[in-house]
Amino acid sequence: MSGSEFQLIEWLRARVGRDPRVPVGIGDDAAVIAPSAGAAGLVAVDMLMEGVHFTLPPATPRDVGRKALAVNLSDIAAMAGVPTLAVVAVALPRARGYEFAQELHRGLHELAREFDVALAGGDTNVWDGGLVVAVTVFGEATARGPVLRGGARPGDWILVTGALGGSLAGKHLSFVPRVREALRLHEAAGLNAMIDLSDGLATDLHRVLDESKVGAVLRAEAIPVSDAARAAADGRTPLEHALEDGEDFELLFTLAEEDARRLLASPPIELPLAHIGEITTGSGCELIDTDGKRRALPRAGWEHAF
Amino acid sequence: MSGSEFQLIEWLRARVGRDPRVPVGIGDDAAVIAPSAGAAGLVAVDMLMEGVHFTLPPATPRDVGRKALAVNLSDIAAMAGVPTLAVVAVALPRARGYEFAQELHRGLHELAREFDVALAGGDTNVWDGGLVVAVTVFGEATARGPVLRGGARPGDWILVTGALGGSLAGKHLSFVPRVREALRLHEAAGLNAMIDLSDGLATDLHRVLDESKVGAVLRAEAIPVSDAARAAADGRTPLEHALEDGEDFELLFTLAEEDARRLLASPPIELPLAHIGEITTGSGCELIDTDGKRRALPRAGWEHAF
Repeated sequence: MSGSEFQLIEWLRARVGRDPRVPVGIGDDAAVIAPSAGAAGLVAVDMLMEGVHFTLPPATPRDVGRKALAVNLSDIAAMAGVPTLAVVAVALPRARGYEFAQELHRGLHELAREFDVALAGGDTNVWDGGLVVAVTVFGEATARGPVLRGGARPGDWILVTGALGGSLAGKHLSFVPRVREALRLHEAAGLNAMIDLSDGLATDLHRVLDESKVGAVLRAEAIPVSDAARAAADGRTPLEHALEDGEDFELLFTLAEEDARRLLASPPIELPLAHIGEITTGSGCELIDTDGKRRALPRAGWEHAF
Repeated sequence: MSGSEFQLIEWLRARVGRDPRVPVGIGDDAAVIAPSAGAAGLVAVDMLMEGVHFTLPPATPRDVGRKALAVNLSDIAAMAGVPTLAVVAVALPRARGYEFAQELHRGLHELAREFDVALAGGDTNVWDGGLVVAVTVFGEATARGPVLRGGARPGDWILVTGALGGSLAGKHLSFVPRVREALRLHEAAGLNAMIDLSDGLATDLHRVLDESKVGAVLRAEAIPVSDAARAAADGRTPLEHALEDGEDFELLFTLAEEDARRLLASPPIELPLAHIGEITTGSGCELIDTDGKRRALPRAGWEHAF
């Protein structure tokens, strides 16, 4: 195997150019970052592990690097924030070698460039275990402030971007984090609460409800089901996929009815927007099935257990 | 096994408490942090992996949690910065269970409290691989500015704190990051360059020399050798341990001769300070052995290879 950690760091350093937001980047004990302009700062961290969040193959190292940053950008999007900086810690499987590590970083850098995120630093390690990538992303809230999970109010409409379910068929690697969409939506309409759908609509909606101390009613027929969810043919219905599958990385948000009507009448983004239900007083979530029957929608979806 | 990720997050959330530096902490997509007061920001990230940076046992999960933060605080110390916030990403081995995870976080929280570091957020995952902990720490430089690796000048004296070598015997888990010492030293004397000794004196000194584009001469007899290095009895000399062992987490710094003399005459810290050599023009490092012979000191010590 050619190369070493030192070589990789030098390669990274040459590759990651200068950025005014990072006066001192890769190559010192810590990165020096310019002070923020007074906006509230945002920080998100996500760790991806081989065999849990991806498998190699079908994922390539480039896919994994891209996804490791993308899931974090999705978190910043969920706050309606602007991502600015990232740092990356990697545990590389020894047997995979130097070019694998370069490919991983290439995937990450490509997405960073696309979203104008500066790479401020990292930690690169080699071991005999599986690939682990942990990315920490910084961002800034806009003048409207961050959108929290806890701001939903009774009467709010619940909207989602895109189409849901079946992400494992490919979207979980190729999704585009909804950073630009979140900014435009918040600017256009003033969102009350938002979350990115990482663990499935049912689970993530419950997180918003719990934080906001409210309930919700959803209409099954209004939930946008992806083609991949329809194609799954694994005994679960497309609706079940849309409700329970993780890693959609679409946005779920709530806002006042009049703002929602305005938004839907003149959407500021190209992605489809679906009005899937309303926030209610009380707690928990009801689902109105296509036959009109109401049933409780339990917290479900993707949750790692010990 | 009892518990789940959700339970753990709720436990963490109840445990971490409010901090004015983190208006929104654990429990949202990203943490909201207060804007900095205008100081240059610092960011460090380090990942610890089972079998590489610790073994369980002899290390306890509490030790590992503590160390995962401590290595990052040591990086902030090496910039003469004040650590303020941390985020933590963990890959937990499924078989270890819930209490193991709690113990890990307890170790981390104890050290965070000791250094007044707010825990802003994290990501907790379970998998079938070994334990991995990645911590990202934020800090702020003081009014004197951060101390970089690249500031050493010919004529500077080279000093180190504490005693070196043999860290694997225990210090690699129990070391106290030299945050307070770095601040006092920089305030008292204006340091030109600094690094924390994580990969061994020889390797880390070369990093300072490379970044500063200078050389150095060290005197073997002046290098402070730890009791653990003397006790090692593994065929390597105590000096070799002091030069090559990783994870001392002491500070190596350079400063002008007159400042160094003043510092040594009236040290602002209780830890021993040793004057081990000088910065020269040129490149690379020479070691003057105890018998007066000069030899090149190669870059050595702890480096992970593919």
